[in-house]
Amino acid sequence: MRAIVYKGPFQVAVENVEDPKIEHPADVIVRLTSTAICGSDLHMYEGRTAAKPGIVFGHENLGIVQETGPGVVSIHQGDRVVMPFNVACGFCKNCVAGYTGFCLTVNPGFAGGAYGYVAMGPYRGGQAEYLRVPFADFNCLKLPPGQEHEDDFVLLADIFPTGYHGCELAGVTVGDSVAVYGAGPIGLMAAYSALLRGASKVFVVDRVPERLAKARDIGAIPVNFSEADPVAQIKEQTGGEGTDKGIDAVGYQAQARTGKGEAPATVLNSLVETVRATGMIGVPGLYVPSDPGGVDDAAKRGMLLVEVGKFFEKGQRMGMGQANVKRYNRQLRDMIIDGRAAPSFVVSHDVGLDQAPEAYDKFDKRIDGYTKVVLKPAA
Amino acid sequence: MRAIVYKGPFQVAVENVEDPKIEHPADVIVRLTSTAICGSDLHMYEGRTAAKPGIVFGHENLGIVQETGPGVVSIHQGDRVVMPFNVACGFCKNCVAGYTGFCLTVNPGFAGGAYGYVAMGPYRGGQAEYLRVPFADFNCLKLPPGQEHEDDFVLLADIFPTGYHGCELAGVTVGDSVAVYGAGPIGLMAAYSALLRGASKVFVVDRVPERLAKARDIGAIPVNFSEADPVAQIKEQTGGEGTDKGIDAVGYQAQARTGKGEAPATVLNSLVETVRATGMIGVPGLYVPSDPGGVDDAAKRGMLLVEVGKFFEKGQRMGMGQANVKRYNRQLRDMIIDGRAAPSFVVSHDVGLDQAPEAYDKFDKRIDGYTKVVLKPAA
Amino acid sequence: MRAIVYKGPFQVAVENVEDPKIEHPADVIVRLTSTAICGSDLHMYEGRTAAKPGIVFGHENLGIVQETGPGVVSIHQGDRVVMPFNVACGFCKNCVAGYTGFCLTVNPGFAGGAYGYVAMGPYRGGQAEYLRVPFADFNCLKLPPGQEHEDDFVLLADIFPTGYHGCELAGVTVGDSVAVYGAGPIGLMAAYSALLRGASKVFVVDRVPERLAKARDIGAIPVNFSEADPVAQIKEQTGGEGTDKGIDAVGYQAQARTGKGEAPATVLNSLVETVRATGMIGVPGLYVPSDPGGVDDAAKRGMLLVEVGKFFEKGQRMGMGQANVKRYNRQLRDMIIDGRAAPSFVVSHDVGLDQAPEAYDKFDKRIDGYTKVVLKPAA
Amino acid sequence: MRAIVYKGPFQVAVENVEDPKIEHPADVIVRLTSTAICGSDLHMYEGRTAAKPGIVFGHENLGIVQETGPGVVSIHQGDRVVMPFNVACGFCKNCVAGYTGFCLTVNPGFAGGAYGYVAMGPYRGGQAEYLRVPFADFNCLKLPPGQEHEDDFVLLADIFPTGYHGCELAGVTVGDSVAVYGAGPIGLMAAYSALLRGASKVFVVDRVPERLAKARDIGAIPVNFSEADPVAQIKEQTGGEGTDKGIDAVGYQAQARTGKGEAPATVLNSLVETVRATGMIGVPGLYVPSDPGGVDDAAKRGMLLVEVGKFFEKGQRMGMGQANVKRYNRQLRDMIIDGRAAPSFVVSHDVGLDQAPEAYDKFDKRIDGYTKVVLKPAA
Repeated sequence: MRAIVYKGPFQVAVENVEDPKIEHPADVIVRLTSTAICGSDLHMYEGRTAAKPGIVFGHENLGIVQETGPGVVSIHQGDRVVMPFNVACGFCKNCVAGYTGFCLTVNPGFAGGAYGYVAMGPYRGGQAEYLRVPFADFNCLKLPPGQEHEDDFVLLADIFPTGYHGCELAGVTVGDSVAVYGAGPIGLMAAYSALLRGASKVFVVDRVPERLAKARDIGAIPVNFSEADPVAQIKEQTGGEGTDKGIDAVGYQAQARTGKGEAPATVLNSLVETVRATGMIGVPGLYVPSDPGGVDDAAKRGMLLVEVGKFFEKGQRMGMGQANVKRYNRQLRDMIIDGRAAPSFVVSHDVGLDQAPEAYDKFDKRIDGYTKVVLKPAA
Repeated sequence: MRAIVYKGPFQVAVENVEDPKIEHPADVIVRLTSTAICGSDLHMYEGRTAAKPGIVFGHENLGIVQETGPGVVSIHQGDRVVMPFNVACGFCKNCVAGYTGFCLTVNPGFAGGAYGYVAMGPYRGGQAEYLRVPFADFNCLKLPPGQEHEDDFVLLADIFPTGYHGCELAGVTVGDSVAVYGAGPIGLMAAYSALLRGASKVFVVDRVPERLAKARDIGAIPVNFSEADPVAQIKEQTGGEGTDKGIDAVGYQAQARTGKGEAPATVLNSLVETVRATGMIGVPGLYVPSDPGGVDDAAKRGMLLVEVGKFFEKGQRMGMGQANVKRYNRQLRDMIIDGRAAPSFVVSHDVGLDQAPEAYDKFDKRIDGYTKVVLKPAA
Repeated sequence: MRAIVYKGPFQVAVENVEDPKIEHPADVIVRLTSTAICGSDLHMYEGRTAAKPGIVFGHENLGIVQETGPGVVSIHQGDRVVMPFNVACGFCKNCVAGYTGFCLTVNPGFAGGAYGYVAMGPYRGGQAEYLRVPFADFNCLKLPPGQEHEDDFVLLADIFPTGYHGCELAGVTVGDSVAVYGAGPIGLMAAYSALLRGASKVFVVDRVPERLAKARDIGAIPVNFSEADPVAQIKEQTGGEGTDKGIDAVGYQAQARTGKGEAPATVLNSLVETVRATGMIGVPGLYVPSDPGGVDDAAKRGMLLVEVGKFFEKGQRMGMGQANVKRYNRQLRDMIIDGRAAPSFVVSHDVGLDQAPEAYDKFDKRIDGYTKVVLKPAA
Repeated sequence: MRAIVYKGPFQVAVENVEDPKIEHPADVIVRLTSTAICGSDLHMYEGRTAAKPGIVFGHENLGIVQETGPGVVSIHQGDRVVMPFNVACGFCKNCVAGYTGFCLTVNPGFAGGAYGYVAMGPYRGGQAEYLRVPFADFNCLKLPPGQEHEDDFVLLADIFPTGYHGCELAGVTVGDSVAVYGAGPIGLMAAYSALLRGASKVFVVDRVPERLAKARDIGAIPVNFSEADPVAQIKEQTGGEGTDKGIDAVGYQAQARTGKGEAPATVLNSLVETVRATGMIGVPGLYVPSDPGGVDDAAKRGMLLVEVGKFFEKGQRMGMGQANVKRYNRQLRDMIIDGRAAPSFVVSHDVGLDQAPEAYDKFDKRIDGYTKVVLKPAA
């Protein structure tokens, strides 16, 4: 079959690879109809991880079940399904507790697995024609047959639940004011989720006018940090108090507000300032324990200078980490089916596999409006 | 009346001060029968804060109501009452939400007030014969008449709820394994609370044998960090997994495990290592936004190098800040009355006001077994 | 001052009564600008309660502070405020736990008090020019100055939070399907709140076409129970499964679906059937322990035949009781201010005090479109 | 193999039946070492259900894995395991949400399955030498090897988690007063769990002195309802207030307090009276939608006269239904391993399979101290 193969920094190619096959009775094979490129794929693409050439990317996968293992009970050939980016077993201590992003079974020695991602286990990615899905009864979420909502549903694999997870970690609830840092796909999904949960006022901080415009379109209040200190801007619009909740959808590659280069703790510390005493902060934006490209020795080891004293004084709480997609994807799917949510407004491009190399290049350079690309392997 | 007055670094004196009086219809005056010295009083005593000579210390107060303002409804002369260390109004946004440690009324411009503490508002401390209690209906917790459980009840003002708050922030529940760093009064109260909440296994980390012995007495597992890396010791006793939850009862004056001096983030980072993926960390131990005695420039501004990358990778959550005593003190009082809790095992000394200067000196030096002192102004 | 006085069954009059005055340091006097007639006022109006002639009705009150007692701290003359229908002290065991609808202080011997309501304590109602508000710091919620949103804000006194409380008791959350029985003001507020909380699909059951049309207008799915069994209608639209959650906004005066007369348990039992296994049911609709007009002896004592066996088999949960308005009114106020909620769509008439007798008559008879009347004492 | 076979009302026999075998890749076969007789087995034994002769009873099962299907991942031959009485798939909507007692997969057309129980699916019971366990990775909880704690661990299959579930439904937390009606095995486990969760005061209501003595032994306060109205007794011991929480561990076969015969709603209604306003009630005691032996026509259809008016007035909440054992069994297992819980104090008899008929007879008659019998098939 054809697949997107990583060839080295800034290089992917469409190549023929071996077809996946049923390896365990609980597996299914899915013929992919939509598979999105994620911002986190770019970390590997740029060569800033230990990913070796040869890896097939792709953890945002939707398609039609082609074949089922003899142990599969609830999923059948022809079913249209979307899979969480986290591979999970469904029965370990963490999965049973709902922490499917930290499965103890699928990636031995580590809590959590994923498709097509370095160090996340032996699961080939889905930017290809077919995908093997392990523990299929647990990992496949059934969708209505047909093609409707295809670009909404594919976002159930990762970014819609990931944005929602930010709200969950921050405890966003009815009447809350919320500050979301970052207006990329995750930040927009976090802001969108906050509004779905009944937030009264959602600020979105970024400096890219197009992104801020999208934030405004969904009912959020854009805050351009290149114009003035975002903390001050938000405090001014909240009677000096700051927001009830905050979400970091940027992560460790945050840009310094003024001057050049990365300032990896700037968003975290801005949130400590932005959020009022007793508030909560959710962090779906990625921080890593080892970053060879870190700005200093500490950052290289994932250690950042955090305003702990202020955090204590304000009695705040903070939660981090990748989303447990399985906790939310069914409910968010129903929101899409019932016409209450349509997250595909973030999708900028639908392209065939053949255009993937170009799409990676442009997405990585953030040019020509490439903000969220969905590949269509069947096209 | 007589009161303990701060005279300057390492100096307190018993002096005559003006009697407190009703200043507002909701005030009461309490004649103190027990008032404890807190570890946090030592920060002021040592001159490491902005506290000016003349301040009367004391935020752990219990006594008999002497006089009531005309607006007081539920509290009467002769009632035996204990007051949370936090002064709170009961009706601001934060108090109504249960965050009485972050009252927006009592200390204008800041979230939170307390008796006898620098920068915590105009409330004279209770290490004296009498205390004015504002918003008395809200701030007084009634106790059974008599003298029974006096040293248990006085701990309801601060350290028992504060230890309990650590468990609340960490979400300690039935069957959890818990690591508590610090076996001072707060750490012991945290471990004790964890067991009351049904934790299956509670580790307590310290290096003082007497403290560790107390931890063992209440059913916890002592871990002496001077013997070996406490993270390794705890992982060894949890099948390599680490604990479900962790509590920092040390704060920013943490000692480096090896070598000399303070290592202000060492406990926080040890907890990130100790607690397993998906776990929660509660931090009742104090961190401050400004510490003139900090080990470096960052520490002086309350900024510490935290293992953010690891924290994210493990999907942990963390909550900090002073306890909202009012949320817990009624329930914990009932545990004492019903014979299910007896926290006074941490009290080392009951002394009269006259011995307060000596008690401060010895408590500060941690000599002669001074670990928790209760003053008896009426004695 | 002028006030609406109950004269006997089906009779109210505008009369002069004594002006209220400060009786306690924590009181304020409010000059009313809006005060709504509640469906529960009709129980008294119809003579189906023990209410004696002379009582002044009115528990949905909004106005301008005219005078403050010497103990009031946060409320000032000229402030625009709305009061929860529940009178609460703010410091009793129940208030501190957030159960302000069950205050133990304000109505001795009973849990809960209210303005202008039989057996709910000595608090005169607000369908008048002035109102005394006890424990004013706790009971007054400040509003922005001016007249904006007047008819939205007045609903913060009762029906908006009461509808929201139904959702809270039922645990309505993102992606839920919800069945609301009753499309009167409370039912509409419950459905509206469910959508604010992110429900994916909200059914509203009634038989009055105008009410069902309002339900449809806000995005709910109307179900006319006079056309067919509502349980069957809802199951048909949920794949045979029933809804995740259910809300009873009808109460004990439920009409039998077929035939004539009251069937006091019919809504409760329909909800047990409508809601799927593991679901939750919230009941803001009123049930009473003593109903002289009950359909049989058991009903007269508030005892109803409930499908307990089915309830157990389905593993459902149910919560009942009047709303703790204070828990929600601040957040819902902010939703109004920020343009995210506008509950006044349920208000049918704004009239002066003089028209109150006519409004009572028409509202009681449900004629001329009287569904929710707001009196304007200052008009 | 040998198994306990139901022959008809009041008759079971030890007979040879076909050995179970792997029927699906996710199955395992367990060689039973302990399998308890449950009070709910007696409903079938007495012929009060639709159970047909030939059924093999037994849903409280513990043993050693004998054989594993090719799809089983985490369970191996020789593992010592205990199974929840509920058979669950682990991946349906309800299982993923933690409601494993209401699995939608294992018993098509019904929410929930169990071993050896009428209408709970095609799963043979474990009062036998061997048991087939479906979805073994999900349904087997691993235990430490050996024989230690055997009679504690076997209670993890049902009654310990079921008693705990009562506390969960009632929201029992630190400092609560709790009333448990029924001092049979479930009631004792509920009281025991309440104390583990930090309840300050637990009342246990029954009339059998031996049962009440056991309640006292574990630290609860016995209340003999044959001596005086239990509501009055409990109110007297709670300052007239009643308890914070209540648990019904009796169910529909409740005996009238005075006079003869069953009064199926008496415990429910006593709890509404016993529990204070704002309180919660958990009901693990069984209620059925169809009871041919019901005391009247309504009872035969599972409809009972409930004090709905009082329930509303007090703003209470109530949850019912069978336990989701999987939610609690891991944590409770750890409590046993760590020496913090030892529920086997309720076990009265350990006997071989051959004595099962005698044990059924005596347990059913409640003679010779038969309160909880554990069969030892390997003995």
